[in-house]
Amino acid sequence: MTLVFHERVGLNGRRISPFSWRIRYALAHKGLDPDVVPTRFADVERIRALSGQHFVPIIEHDGEVVHDSWSIACHLEDRFPDGPTLFGSAAGRGAARLVNIWSDTVLGRAMRPLVYADFIRCIDPGDRAYFRGSRETQLGMTLEQYSADRPAALAELRAACAVLERTLSEQPFLAGPSPAYVDYIVFSVFQWARVGSPRDALAELAGLDATRDWRARMVALFDNLGDRFALYPTESE
Amino acid sequence: MTLVFHERVGLNGRRISPFSWRIRYALAHKGLDPDVVPTRFADVERIRALSGQHFVPIIEHDGEVVHDSWSIACHLEDRFPDGPTLFGSAAGRGAARLVNIWSDTVLGRAMRPLVYADFIRCIDPGDRAYFRGSRETQLGMTLEQYSADRPAALAELRAACAVLERTLSEQPFLAGPSPAYVDYIVFSVFQWARVGSPRDALAELAGLDATRDWRARMVALFDNLGDRFALYPTESE
Repeated sequence: MTLVFHERVGLNGRRISPFSWRIRYALAHKGLDPDVVPTRFADVERIRALSGQHFVPIIEHDGEVVHDSWSIACHLEDRFPDGPTLFGSAAGRGAARLVNIWSDTVLGRAMRPLVYADFIRCIDPGDRAYFRGSRETQLGMTLEQYSADRPAALAELRAACAVLERTLSEQPFLAGPSPAYVDYIVFSVFQWARVGSPRDALAELAGLDATRDWRARMVALFDNLGDRFALYPTESE
Repeated sequence: MTLVFHERVGLNGRRISPFSWRIRYALAHKGLDPDVVPTRFADVERIRALSGQHFVPIIEHDGEVVHDSWSIACHLEDRFPDGPTLFGSAAGRGAARLVNIWSDTVLGRAMRPLVYADFIRCIDPGDRAYFRGSRETQLGMTLEQYSADRPAALAELRAACAVLERTLSEQPFLAGPSPAYVDYIVFSVFQWARVGSPRDALAELAGLDATRDWRARMVALFDNLGDRFALYPTESE
C-alpha cells in the first residue's frame, strides 16, 4: 500500500492550512503514516497536473488521487475501515458534514479577519506575492484593511464560539467522549490561527473556557501533534 | 412496559412545541407508541409535581420521569437499543448535541420573530395571557414589537439556513442517507413555524430549495406525521 499526503507548507516548513491540518489529524486518528510531500503555493503546476485542480490537501492512495478535505476524510474512513472510525456511523458522517460546512463558513469566516494581516509572515517569502494578490482580489481590499476592525471580528468569533462553548461544557469533545473528525474539522480553524497569528483571539474573549480547554486537549492529541511544527515566526526569522 | 409522553398542546389539540415535536418524531423513529398526555401551559402544577420543573416534553418510562428533549432522546436511544438508532454512534450523538445547541440558539432564535406575533392564536385561549406575559417579560417588548421588522428577521433566517442548504444540496437528510435525530431537531423548528404562522418564511426566501424539499420529506415521514395535527387556525376557529 502506498499513501502520499500533499500538504500545504509555509515559511520554514510551517503547516499553514486548516484543510491540511484536519487531514493530518485524520491520518493520525487512523494510525496512518503517509509519505508527506510539502507543497507550496508555487507548486501549483505539479498539483494541477496531479489532480486537475489547484487546492491541497491531496492524497494519493495506491495511485488513486483524492482532493478536497471532506472527500479525503470519507476516503480514509471507507478505505481504512479497520482503523478507529472518523465518523462513528452514517448518521455521524451526515452530521459531520453539516458541522464541516458550518465550520468553514461561519467559524472560519469569523476567524479570518483576526488572522489574515498577521498570516502573511507565515508564508514562504516566494509565495507571499501570490497569496496577497489572490486574497486581496477576492476580498476587494488589502489584508490589513480586512483585519482592521478587530473588535467587530472578535464579536463575530464570540457568537460563533457560543455554540462550541455550550457543547464543550457538557462533553469533552465535539464527537462526545472521545475525539473524531468533527473535532479535527473545528480544531483546524483554531490551529490555523495558532500558526497564523501571534495573538490568541480565544484568550481575548472571556467566557470561552471550555473551548480553550478543548483546544489544549486537541493540541495534545497524538503525542502533541498540534505542537509538532513551528507556530508564528519570531521577529528575526 | 409503560411509556407516557407529556406533550405540549395548544388550540384544539394543536402540537405547538418544537421540543415536543422532535420527541414525537424520535418516538416514531423508535417505533414506540406511548400514551400521550396533552399538556397545556395551565397544567404547570401537574408538571411540577411530576418532574420538579415546569417544561414539557416529559416522558415517564416504567415510572422513571425524564424531562428535557435532549435527555429524553438519549434515554430513548439507550433504553430502546433494539429500535432504529437515533444517533448512529457515540460520535453521532456528540455531533447531534452540537447541532441541537446550534438549532435552539441560532436557527430557533432566527425563526422566533417570524412566528411570535402570529403564534398567540395557536395557543389555547386559557393559556394566552400566561404566554404573552411570560414571553413579553423575557423579551422586554410586546410580541408584535418583537416581530415587527420582518425583513431583518428574514435576513437572519437566511444566514442560518445557508448551512442547511449547502448540506442538504449534497445529501438527502442532515444525518446523511436516512433521517435521524439531527433531522428531528432541526425540522422541529420549521414544523413549529408551520403550526405557528400562516406565513411560510422559507418560501419568502429564494435559494433555499434543498431545505424546502427536505422539509417536505420530513413532513411526509412516518405516514405524514408532520400533517397529522391541524396547522395554523382558520379565521373562524
